[in-house]
Amino acid sequence: MDFPFSRIQGGVGAPKGFLTSAVSCGIKNPASDRLDLALVYSESPCASAGTFTTNRVRAAPVRVSQSNLRKGDLRAIVANSGNANACTGVQGVTDANAMCDGVAKPLGLKRSEVGVCSTGVIGLPLPMVRVTPKFEELVSKLGPKNGADVAAAIITSDTRTKEIAISFDLDGTRVRIGGCVKGAGMISPSMATMLCFITTDVNLPSACLRKTVLECVEESFNRITIDGDMSTNDSVIVLANGAAGGAPLRRNGKRCKQFREALHWVMLELAKAVVRDGERVTKFVTVKVVGAKTYLDAKKVAEAVCKSALVKSSWNGGDPNWGRIIHAVGYSRARIREELVDIHIGGKAACLGGLQAPTPMDELREVVAAPEFEIVISLNQGSADYTMYSSDLSPEYIDFNRSEYAYWKQARKDGLV
Amino acid sequence: MDFPFSRIQGGVGAPKGFLTSAVSCGIKNPASDRLDLALVYSESPCASAGTFTTNRVRAAPVRVSQSNLRKGDLRAIVANSGNANACTGVQGVTDANAMCDGVAKPLGLKRSEVGVCSTGVIGLPLPMVRVTPKFEELVSKLGPKNGADVAAAIITSDTRTKEIAISFDLDGTRVRIGGCVKGAGMISPSMATMLCFITTDVNLPSACLRKTVLECVEESFNRITIDGDMSTNDSVIVLANGAAGGAPLRRNGKRCKQFREALHWVMLELAKAVVRDGERVTKFVTVKVVGAKTYLDAKKVAEAVCKSALVKSSWNGGDPNWGRIIHAVGYSRARIREELVDIHIGGKAACLGGLQAPTPMDELREVVAAPEFEIVISLNQGSADYTMYSSDLSPEYIDFNRSEYAYWKQARKDGLV
Repeated sequence: MDFPFSRIQGGVGAPKGFLTSAVSCGIKNPASDRLDLALVYSESPCASAGTFTTNRVRAAPVRVSQSNLRKGDLRAIVANSGNANACTGVQGVTDANAMCDGVAKPLGLKRSEVGVCSTGVIGLPLPMVRVTPKFEELVSKLGPKNGADVAAAIITSDTRTKEIAISFDLDGTRVRIGGCVKGAGMISPSMATMLCFITTDVNLPSACLRKTVLECVEESFNRITIDGDMSTNDSVIVLANGAAGGAPLRRNGKRCKQFREALHWVMLELAKAVVRDGERVTKFVTVKVVGAKTYLDAKKVAEAVCKSALVKSSWNGGDPNWGRIIHAVGYSRARIREELVDIHIGGKAACLGGLQAPTPMDELREVVAAPEFEIVISLNQGSADYTMYSSDLSPEYIDFNRSEYAYWKQARKDGLV
Repeated sequence: MDFPFSRIQGGVGAPKGFLTSAVSCGIKNPASDRLDLALVYSESPCASAGTFTTNRVRAAPVRVSQSNLRKGDLRAIVANSGNANACTGVQGVTDANAMCDGVAKPLGLKRSEVGVCSTGVIGLPLPMVRVTPKFEELVSKLGPKNGADVAAAIITSDTRTKEIAISFDLDGTRVRIGGCVKGAGMISPSMATMLCFITTDVNLPSACLRKTVLECVEESFNRITIDGDMSTNDSVIVLANGAAGGAPLRRNGKRCKQFREALHWVMLELAKAVVRDGERVTKFVTVKVVGAKTYLDAKKVAEAVCKSALVKSSWNGGDPNWGRIIHAVGYSRARIREELVDIHIGGKAACLGGLQAPTPMDELREVVAAPEFEIVISLNQGSADYTMYSSDLSPEYIDFNRSEYAYWKQARKDGLV
């Protein structure tokens, strides 16, 4: 970001006028007391925006949140971990609506002013019997500047919470953006799925916010991949309550561009944090494709490389294997010419004109031995580029994802299956 | 196959008039005496056909074989393992041509009558210094009914050789088809890549053979996936010398249809053998998609399911996880409706109408505990279907593919890099 900003505490609760809380319901495991139900609430009306999975199998909370956003703006978000409420049919929609109602009533909101998100196993009904009694406590615990509880309540296979908050000046007005994210995105969607909540006290109209959010998501969360699997529950919801004051931003105005830059920066930081915390990930790899004929060609190449099981295996092994990279470039369906392709790893040439470059192998091995490195693939056919953030694939990832049987055993005990 | 046939010995050398041989050059490792250079030769002119990788990065031998097939028919195939001769530029084409010349001259053939295939690591030049001296021995060892040496010489990461031969009556004439295959297909293309050679003494014109081969490959080798990676070297070459006698088959005639059925059966057996021998594979899974609106919708669903790292991980764990299957169905970009999707595992309902079916979990777990099982995904939207053959993804696969450094060390010793 090329204007001054400060990191501040409080995550999604940091912006003015936002209150948050989280409680423990034992959704996945009744014996556990970990936080698994969270609430984000704005004391005043908000502009709001959301982007959701493009999977044709959409979880009930995704359907309900999309429907509510079509009706108007949201002012609160309720979210649970431990169960995705996906592939749960009519009952799933009833349960997602009940989650909205559960917080809307005590807060004096309409059901349609609440966004709802769930994350966890697919195909099992939500154990509402353990969720419903907790709404009162959830609302009563609402307080300022404590986004950490929300960040903690939404994680599943994540090894750590991921949150951020910043403040900066927008033409004389101090404004704040806070956010948290969980898991997974395309990392491990069936157990995890990506949820991201962002709050801001910037004052801007809904239409302007929605367009800005779409642009920023495209250049952050849509640029990451761990295992190439797209979730049924992915949701990014942004609330802007204007509590910082100042005149509303105008679309394409100078302040709007600055806000866009800040929002993009926040989203990209959270997106990268998702990759770094990917299931059993040991490498964070930036893949830049440059010199493509078109944006779409560049995107195809980046996605093919970042999703190749063989490329990811070699990263896991610390092997600077450009042969596997160029083979994925070749099957990407992008327009490429083998004899024009250059591949640089950590700034050192690994492949020039489709052939092995003279860089000593040991120098390249040193680069990929590090936990983070960058690969630049130059197609030398045009001026379009595309950057993705990816990870290795480890034996431990497969091992970790071998079975979700424990979920089923609990659902059986709950009398839900 | 619904007409009588016998399995016979001899593999790719079984059909009349075909001679084969293999020798050891030490291409990958000079200290090893394993077979790594093979030759298939017909004593009389052949009809011939080939299908090759659609990867835009094509190995030199693929380019040369395609070019030779455009010039006319092949009568011999020379192939090596231990080096893919891919991403090797002008030198690679020179080397591939030298391999053709090396056998064409002593056999009295034109260079363009020889098909050439290579398999192994990408990006390192072929150590021709160890290959060239061996052509004489290769040609002098030619003999009948010994396809086994060819099958042995072309394998790389395969754990066993894969060959087959059958004989059957074609309107009173006894004819034979023999074949062998190595590795990998999309299993592990950079170390392995799929090569398949098929010989037959059926008498049929080139045009008829080429069309039949295309159809059969589409319904066999194009239906398998292990890791979703497409090779730079995939090649299927078929030679038909007519040595069995009888009048030439006519396209779309009854005998041609019978031959097509037999060829398809042979290719499918070899394709399935590739999956079963996939790197560190423990499960062979048939995925049938039925009731799709169109063939393309069915194909998209089958491919998404068979390529999903999460679905494959659950197969590895013996987990009948229909939630992960339907999530891949959802992101396949096929036209599906979640509430119409049924999923049967081993004939037992796992998911009905997008929801969990009443089948006890333990019954489903018993099915996927077996080394082979079938999954039927009914979209209930039309009548198109598509079947694929796939495998699990194991922690051992990743571990196995972590590094190809040993190849580079040898190439350095050879003075090639």
